[in-house]
Amino acid sequence: MQPPSETAGTTPMRTTPTDTITWVDGTIELVDQTVLPQQEVVLRITAVSDLVAAIRRLSVRGAPALGVAGAYGVALALATVAPGELDDAIEAIRTARPTAVNLARMTDRVAARVPDGPAAVLAEAHAVREEEITASIDMGTRGADLVEALLGGRDVRAMTICNTGGLAAVRRGTALAVVQTLHERGRLADCLALETRPLLQGARLTAWELGQMGAPHHLVVDSAAPFLLSRGAADVVLAGADRIAANGDTANKVGTFSLALAAQHAGVPLVVVAPESTIDHATPDGAAIPIEDRGPAEVGGFGSSRTAPPDTPALNPAFDVTPAAMIHAIVTDKRVVMTSRGQTP
Amino acid sequence: MQPPSETAGTTPMRTTPTDTITWVDGTIELVDQTVLPQQEVVLRITAVSDLVAAIRRLSVRGAPALGVAGAYGVALALATVAPGELDDAIEAIRTARPTAVNLARMTDRVAARVPDGPAAVLAEAHAVREEEITASIDMGTRGADLVEALLGGRDVRAMTICNTGGLAAVRRGTALAVVQTLHERGRLADCLALETRPLLQGARLTAWELGQMGAPHHLVVDSAAPFLLSRGAADVVLAGADRIAANGDTANKVGTFSLALAAQHAGVPLVVVAPESTIDHATPDGAAIPIEDRGPAEVGGFGSSRTAPPDTPALNPAFDVTPAAMIHAIVTDKRVVMTSRGQTP
Repeated sequence: MQPPSETAGTTPMRTTPTDTITWVDGTIELVDQTVLPQQEVVLRITAVSDLVAAIRRLSVRGAPALGVAGAYGVALALATVAPGELDDAIEAIRTARPTAVNLARMTDRVAARVPDGPAAVLAEAHAVREEEITASIDMGTRGADLVEALLGGRDVRAMTICNTGGLAAVRRGTALAVVQTLHERGRLADCLALETRPLLQGARLTAWELGQMGAPHHLVVDSAAPFLLSRGAADVVLAGADRIAANGDTANKVGTFSLALAAQHAGVPLVVVAPESTIDHATPDGAAIPIEDRGPAEVGGFGSSRTAPPDTPALNPAFDVTPAAMIHAIVTDKRVVMTSRGQTP
Repeated sequence: MQPPSETAGTTPMRTTPTDTITWVDGTIELVDQTVLPQQEVVLRITAVSDLVAAIRRLSVRGAPALGVAGAYGVALALATVAPGELDDAIEAIRTARPTAVNLARMTDRVAARVPDGPAAVLAEAHAVREEEITASIDMGTRGADLVEALLGGRDVRAMTICNTGGLAAVRRGTALAVVQTLHERGRLADCLALETRPLLQGARLTAWELGQMGAPHHLVVDSAAPFLLSRGAADVVLAGADRIAANGDTANKVGTFSLALAAQHAGVPLVVVAPESTIDHATPDGAAIPIEDRGPAEVGGFGSSRTAPPDTPALNPAFDVTPAAMIHAIVTDKRVVMTSRGQTP
């Protein structure tokens, strides 16, 4: 992982993270997710190239947070880039990562306001951020209501993958917002968090967030989760989404498909929790979703530890696609789509 | 990982590993699998307590190799332990790890010769080792024949988990012996090796062995394997076994069950490759196989890298159980058990 101080134009500030992404005095402040949980660092981003680099190295990640990053990125570009280079700068932001539709969509939404001037652009970007905060609250409530109904009032042992908490959004998050809401209602018996190789967002970020919220939890390696489900260790699987196709097929962090197979085998519902902005009606089904391969370096090591022999070739799909037929329901900030009853988003 | 030089009574020798476990001048020499692939170190074990420690920290691992370690352990105990402590020493060896039946079985087999004296004990231990070498050759041949027949002569893209190569046995191994035999026959198009968290035997050991044999391969994170299977990336899944129950249910490295679900979903055969000594007719089915939980430390990091927040609780089952119904066939050194046709071992 690249220490933030090596990034030109980015000022690391050691502080207690509050919101994941904030606009402060004409700059973008990001909680640097590459150094958690060992360090709590906020990056101050002052140039588009640094924002693109931060997105690529996953200092900011998670579909909702990427949407906000794209939104503020347009405001930053308008303030810092020569007019002749604005289109290229916006294009660099919107394509910094390929799978999450929010990044491109929110970049485009705010870019459409460029003709109205900087104040309109910034107002639109702030609106994107405020909408994500509201969406997280609504997803948490709606998802917790659904899970409580599914379990008939029993306390909940949830399983989740990757990081879908406040760090993936602005506050609270998506799937982890449901966990947090259940915990606040006193109904969470346990949360099994998958460590989520290769970048270990579960071990680094979700375990940290669960600890911060005082929620009961256990970390597990990804490949143990299907077996634990088969032995009855969880009542519900809660996953986020990077992109939901028109038919309900869902791209999410690699490993979600494995959980879906295991949940189906165990008779445990898999609930996808994601904002409406993640639904992409222009993508008909999962086969049409591009899957990013992040190259061999992440697979051959573990943080600063190299484990595989040098130059070991690897396949490294960052996401996988879960068919709608394996998803019990999709919970958004606006509604519950009962995919198990044939509904589509 | 504990450096071998910190282990009292164990002499590390830097050399090129040949066989995984060898009896040399009244000592047991082991290729230390905790430091591969960065270092190639052979440990010389001169005391039972050091053997037990080496087994526990996985310096020697893999069901066949553990069987040989147990066999030579009895010879070492007879040579080094006071007569009144012999039973306790043998018991410490046979129970150093709980899941692989070979360790207890081969320890018992050689211990039964104690009344006949040291020469008989050592001869029996050598016989165990020789039988494992022959078994590896036979498993490789029989498994490669089966896979070639399944694929109708097409080149083979295999997927495998953990390390089941020469390092898990004495030479060649079990499931990886099949890969090696296919490679020697010029039929191996690719071998997808799962990294195998938490201890990364796939990344550290299997990738190293595949590189040593010049076989085409790609490393993948465990959770990507089910998705890759669903996208047609492999033609057969080859797995070892730590214990096979009487009905064919198979305990193996955690993650095998996940592969079994995905192979079934993708219509790809899962073939278990293990010596006859792994079959435990005294265990009726998978539910009766004890599953070792190796504690939270392995899950919260890797090697010297800590990733999760300190004191994060974890579940860490080292093995899982794959139902016989999900296994296409079990290949042993003596026969092919067609579990998919209802045969039992």
